[in-house]
Amino acid sequence: MTASNTRSKYFVEACIEALGAANVLTASHDTAPFLTDWRKRYRGETCAVLLPGDTQQVARAVRLAREHRVPIVPQGGNTGHSGGATPDASGAQVVISLRRMNRIRAIDTINNTITVEAGAILADIQTRAEQEQRLFALSLAAEGSCTIGGNLSTNAGGTAVLRYGNTRELCLGLEVVTPQGDVWDGLRGLRKDNTGYDLRDLYIGAEGTLGIITAAVMKLHPAPVARVTALAALKSPQAALDFFATAQRHAGPLLTGFELMSDFSLHLVTTHFPQMRYPFSARHGQTVLLELSDNESEAHGRALFGRLMEQAMEQGLVEDAVVADSLSQTKAFWNLREHIPLAQAQEGLNIKHDISVPISSIGDFIAQTDALIAQAIPGVRMVTFGHLGDGNLHYNVQAAEGVDPQGFLAEYQASVNALVYEQVNAFHGSISAEHGLGQLKVSEAMHYKSPVEIRLMRAIKTALDPENLMNPAKVLPDARVS
Amino acid sequence: MTASNTRSKYFVEACIEALGAANVLTASHDTAPFLTDWRKRYRGETCAVLLPGDTQQVARAVRLAREHRVPIVPQGGNTGHSGGATPDASGAQVVISLRRMNRIRAIDTINNTITVEAGAILADIQTRAEQEQRLFALSLAAEGSCTIGGNLSTNAGGTAVLRYGNTRELCLGLEVVTPQGDVWDGLRGLRKDNTGYDLRDLYIGAEGTLGIITAAVMKLHPAPVARVTALAALKSPQAALDFFATAQRHAGPLLTGFELMSDFSLHLVTTHFPQMRYPFSARHGQTVLLELSDNESEAHGRALFGRLMEQAMEQGLVEDAVVADSLSQTKAFWNLREHIPLAQAQEGLNIKHDISVPISSIGDFIAQTDALIAQAIPGVRMVTFGHLGDGNLHYNVQAAEGVDPQGFLAEYQASVNALVYEQVNAFHGSISAEHGLGQLKVSEAMHYKSPVEIRLMRAIKTALDPENLMNPAKVLPDARVS
Repeated sequence: MTASNTRSKYFVEACIEALGAANVLTASHDTAPFLTDWRKRYRGETCAVLLPGDTQQVARAVRLAREHRVPIVPQGGNTGHSGGATPDASGAQVVISLRRMNRIRAIDTINNTITVEAGAILADIQTRAEQEQRLFALSLAAEGSCTIGGNLSTNAGGTAVLRYGNTRELCLGLEVVTPQGDVWDGLRGLRKDNTGYDLRDLYIGAEGTLGIITAAVMKLHPAPVARVTALAALKSPQAALDFFATAQRHAGPLLTGFELMSDFSLHLVTTHFPQMRYPFSARHGQTVLLELSDNESEAHGRALFGRLMEQAMEQGLVEDAVVADSLSQTKAFWNLREHIPLAQAQEGLNIKHDISVPISSIGDFIAQTDALIAQAIPGVRMVTFGHLGDGNLHYNVQAAEGVDPQGFLAEYQASVNALVYEQVNAFHGSISAEHGLGQLKVSEAMHYKSPVEIRLMRAIKTALDPENLMNPAKVLPDARVS
Repeated sequence: MTASNTRSKYFVEACIEALGAANVLTASHDTAPFLTDWRKRYRGETCAVLLPGDTQQVARAVRLAREHRVPIVPQGGNTGHSGGATPDASGAQVVISLRRMNRIRAIDTINNTITVEAGAILADIQTRAEQEQRLFALSLAAEGSCTIGGNLSTNAGGTAVLRYGNTRELCLGLEVVTPQGDVWDGLRGLRKDNTGYDLRDLYIGAEGTLGIITAAVMKLHPAPVARVTALAALKSPQAALDFFATAQRHAGPLLTGFELMSDFSLHLVTTHFPQMRYPFSARHGQTVLLELSDNESEAHGRALFGRLMEQAMEQGLVEDAVVADSLSQTKAFWNLREHIPLAQAQEGLNIKHDISVPISSIGDFIAQTDALIAQAIPGVRMVTFGHLGDGNLHYNVQAAEGVDPQGFLAEYQASVNALVYEQVNAFHGSISAEHGLGQLKVSEAMHYKSPVEIRLMRAIKTALDPENLMNPAKVLPDARVS
């Protein structure tokens, strides 16, 4: 038995004593679901998966891990896109899953806050809020299985950021177990509090590398009376930008969604899902899906969208438009948007990017980068869609028609990534808008960040986790190997 | 000459060489305005006031200070309420004023961002935004002289937090000179960026103790078409809370202001400023000032307020109401609110608190704390007003009628502060909602914060400013003396 194995053995025994045998998984068929990431890019090993039931148990598990020098990988719903919750291959790391800590501790309809444990499923929080005629505004594809702790640790975005912000903007307070096994009770439900450093925002988006988020106070909003959806057909991303400014002027904060879909994105959807219909009689270069959340009435929202579309068509910004006249049409509109990634998967493997640039640069960014890629790989097909209102594009590259996707990826992935990220950097954008760094993008991030920024990040990591116990090699490379 | 004086002398000479003699103030009549805080509570001394003209000059000044071991006090418009920008009495500290760095570097009306230097005056930024039909939503009493760098360093609040958030929520990116004299260029204009630790929010609200903010990218909003204001008369803070929920349900994100004013607050205003009229025919326990920012039309906003008031009066929540029918009436309503602090000053010195509690607790907090204070000091008069929609009260205590204010303060200030802060703590509130800690509230903050939180704050301070060069003894007590 190696020293590391012996250490693991005593650690696991101590965990069983602290948490109970049922909450310490070691058999490979029990741990397997925790060891592969959602996109199946990474597979790790672990000495145990711990399932603490409350904050004190998390703190005890962390203290034991520290005592036995076992690195910790915190995990929520395991739906991350960047491998941030997957342990490495050594088998020396322990996974602490927050899954059992799924209680909603409190809801306050006057303060408009909900206090939840880290393992609470996003959809369950939405449902609880709805029962009180409140909106919990975070919404994203994985909401049926992702947890709020994971959303906070990656500062998840989603489809309502335009109006409500990212997860960061929806959080008022946190409870965190530090790498020393202490509990920081920062569960404040305050809109204003200026009494020291902003620890809350430091833990948000830190992907479990500075501590383990165990609970949070999240903001609620009064539930809107109606949600109205529309599609607008336009010539180009630049026209979509001009239309965005017009829509914001008309609708102000009522505008909650502004999603761009290129013609080829929709072509893929209607090809692979023939039951879905292209919404206009002729094809157009770009389609925008708009959503408005109205606190007055559905009629008010529909009238507002009607006036907006009329003016935009008069100005020649919009070529065609349709306002959903029923809930089923609204669903059909969103279905188009949500089926793009699925249609792309049907078409074959492709090179994905989750990037952001200043909103005003989107037109230039797409035009220039499309041209560079077309020059490098003739016939390549761009699948460009995303949250235009947030400057956030899913800018994906599909092999030329008839070209084997596997071979395409093997040949071009590295060079296409480099080309896209160089362009993102030139436009002062972000190489990871809403998916975090995890282990997937750490080296790219280190390449594009300034030495000053890396030094500051390293100083914070070392100050809060001097023993490098928390999710090592995520967000920042291990100091020893960097 | 002492060693410290010699050190200062060489330092000042080096600064003159770096910045030019005109930008290094040493004569006492030149430095005096920088050495007393806005509320005249603190008076410090300095070896020099530096006026760098750009970021590189700030960086050079910091490197010189570090080399000569001269502690730095950064200063903006010097309008802070907590003494955070005033040097200590030793004369060994240097003041770095950002006043000359007042350029607006860029405005982007599609991205809805404005890039400003730290010394830009808040009102100038508002004006520049207005020229492009944009709103810069930060608004507060000192806007004619405070700077955005100071607003960011104290995370200032103001009158539009309900809809637009604090300064923190209005900031997308920062440029910061670190205590090592490096420049961190984090001037990103992105709505989404998840590529590492949130350094931006760490510097915001740090009151210059971790580095010097030299520039920022701030969010703009489309300018609303109309602002509609109304007053509502109610029985109690609890009724105001119920009315707040109704108003939010009706107006959603259009509601931008919800200010509470107790009857005695308005009594002081109409007494000391007889030209101001109490707006209702009978007196009422509480008056709420509501504001709505409308992107459609003034008529739409007025109709919405009309329906809201009608329903609230039918429900018995509101006893009387008036919607402003002109800009001058709107101004008159806001004048009432803004004259409360002035009327209070006329009435005599008083004990001020800038506190927040969860919004749902405001009724109970006021009732219980009022009773405790009345019991402790018979006849005392409470001046309670503030941003109810943010849970933020200016909860001020005025001597009983006819009692000498100076004697009242001398006798009761410490015990009243202790009583109020104990109550705030019991209600899970904040002892400094929007004014920061500065030097005024450091020891109180240390009393109420948990040892874990203080340890985390100290770890961050030590990691980023190991030589304790940046605004020592602000926010955290000096390690050597704590």
